[in-house]
Amino acid sequence: MGEFDLITRYFTRPAKRAVIGVGDDCALWQCQPGMQLAVSSDMLVEGRHFLNTVPPKRLGHKALAVNLSDLAASGAKPLAFTLALALPRVDESWLQGFSEGLFALADQYPCELVGGDTTQGPLNICITVMGEVPPGDALLRQGAQVGDDIYISGSVGDARLALEVMRGQLSLHAEDFEACRRRMEQPEPRVALGLALRGLANACIDVSDGLVGDLGHVLKASQVAAVLTTDWIQDSAAISPAMQSLPFAKRMDMALAGGDDYELLFTASPDQADAVQEAANESGVSVTCIGRITSGSGLQVLDLQGVPMSRRFASFDHFAH
Amino acid sequence: MGEFDLITRYFTRPAKRAVIGVGDDCALWQCQPGMQLAVSSDMLVEGRHFLNTVPPKRLGHKALAVNLSDLAASGAKPLAFTLALALPRVDESWLQGFSEGLFALADQYPCELVGGDTTQGPLNICITVMGEVPPGDALLRQGAQVGDDIYISGSVGDARLALEVMRGQLSLHAEDFEACRRRMEQPEPRVALGLALRGLANACIDVSDGLVGDLGHVLKASQVAAVLTTDWIQDSAAISPAMQSLPFAKRMDMALAGGDDYELLFTASPDQADAVQEAANESGVSVTCIGRITSGSGLQVLDLQGVPMSRRFASFDHFAH
Repeated sequence: MGEFDLITRYFTRPAKRAVIGVGDDCALWQCQPGMQLAVSSDMLVEGRHFLNTVPPKRLGHKALAVNLSDLAASGAKPLAFTLALALPRVDESWLQGFSEGLFALADQYPCELVGGDTTQGPLNICITVMGEVPPGDALLRQGAQVGDDIYISGSVGDARLALEVMRGQLSLHAEDFEACRRRMEQPEPRVALGLALRGLANACIDVSDGLVGDLGHVLKASQVAAVLTTDWIQDSAAISPAMQSLPFAKRMDMALAGGDDYELLFTASPDQADAVQEAANESGVSVTCIGRITSGSGLQVLDLQGVPMSRRFASFDHFAH
Repeated sequence: MGEFDLITRYFTRPAKRAVIGVGDDCALWQCQPGMQLAVSSDMLVEGRHFLNTVPPKRLGHKALAVNLSDLAASGAKPLAFTLALALPRVDESWLQGFSEGLFALADQYPCELVGGDTTQGPLNICITVMGEVPPGDALLRQGAQVGDDIYISGSVGDARLALEVMRGQLSLHAEDFEACRRRMEQPEPRVALGLALRGLANACIDVSDGLVGDLGHVLKASQVAAVLTTDWIQDSAAISPAMQSLPFAKRMDMALAGGDDYELLFTASPDQADAVQEAANESGVSVTCIGRITSGSGLQVLDLQGVPMSRRFASFDHFAH
């Protein structure tokens, strides 16, 4: 199978909202008057962002999900995406699975595949996603205010936990492992929550490199400091049953620095606490208050007795591991 | 140097037209009312799209140029782009050169870097470019009319010629080789010509896989056939001095099936011949008439005596070589 047959068979569907979709030099898209375009690119490399054991259907899902997670963190509504794919060889069963997983998630929003590129090379998946947001409504990393509550959506630590089990560093009950593995291989982007947080959250980011590291980006952009509690790691909706089975210190590592969570980390005024919970309920995802924004700079993590801890929680850096 | 320092040092500049540029989960861009967005992604892999001998500054140029060439082929005005980069390691002199070449071309249009991704992995460069075009003005592959003249901009064959010299399959005088090598490593996207062809060209594509192969995409999309002449390969602006030094048959191979040309191949009514030449003059690039659109299907190439040739000219396919 050649390059053009491959594109036709697995990645070409009739254009829906696109004026011109896959198959010309450029895709054409009619922007809504007055809206701002939100754009993000993520590149996934085998061995860094996924293991070669991942089912291709889940990988198709994940490749788009991590991009939709960036739109969610900006409070943008998904519109369209491009897919650039380097493949070592044409493997039709892989392409079938990958495209199924990709389109299943794309159709859910909907977010239309409008173009891209296919080439021979070490496996590499690069998606660029576009969304829209009314001017002034986007959620940014900057904007966190002193006194804001800090929230995390869903649960954290599960993806890293699955990775450690797969590396043989930990063991889990089969059903706990399967749940964590699904969180790692098939994360659900929090798009509905991102939209519901417009006008409520003062700052927002998605957690991909680890909670503490990504919170650091918010603090830096907003020029504020933060105090994180840890009682929520003891017992809250943010800690899954699999995570509950770990000793507390290990659980804290996974929750604060695990990475690959694709949850929304955001801040909001305490006055908005009820509205935040309502937004979460409407979006079908839990949110847990995990700390507070303070003045100054830096991040303190309090132990269960409320005493500042001295240890650092390193976040993921692609060139430091 | 870590991932975030790398992005800050080499790829972060103050936002110009972007509402939010590099450094948040998404870039934000205010679309012009009523305009259509043109979007294209190209992925460049070492050994497929460039050799490891290419100076990084030229590679930075080329990575953006091949994307701008897609905007040119659509008659779209460049606006912004994202860059996703997988690097085997942090090589500061490489990053310095690459970013210099990239930004030099970006500033020429201007086309603003608004976001992207950086990760560790086999060298891979994926750029997604965005441009704008008034509704109905975009140049498409479909739209070629029976009787249209077929044109090629600039010159063809040079990039392939340079590749064959580097592979030791041919030799050239030093200055001819240098000129061809520059065409291969630092192609100039025909953006001004693409804009000038709005309302003049009936169909357009950029030549990346080879003239005959890319013309095939136009014929298929437009449901027409074509006859190509070859006297222009004997002597015209489309054949460079380096190409002139080759035997005619070899020259024909390079011109018709070489690839990596990044010239515009377009069709226009013979009534528009003067206007096409004027558009070319204003854009500072030559255009050469190389054939005519006919009814039916398929492509005939005529020899210098006007007799149809039987041989095929294979175009580049990433999974067929």
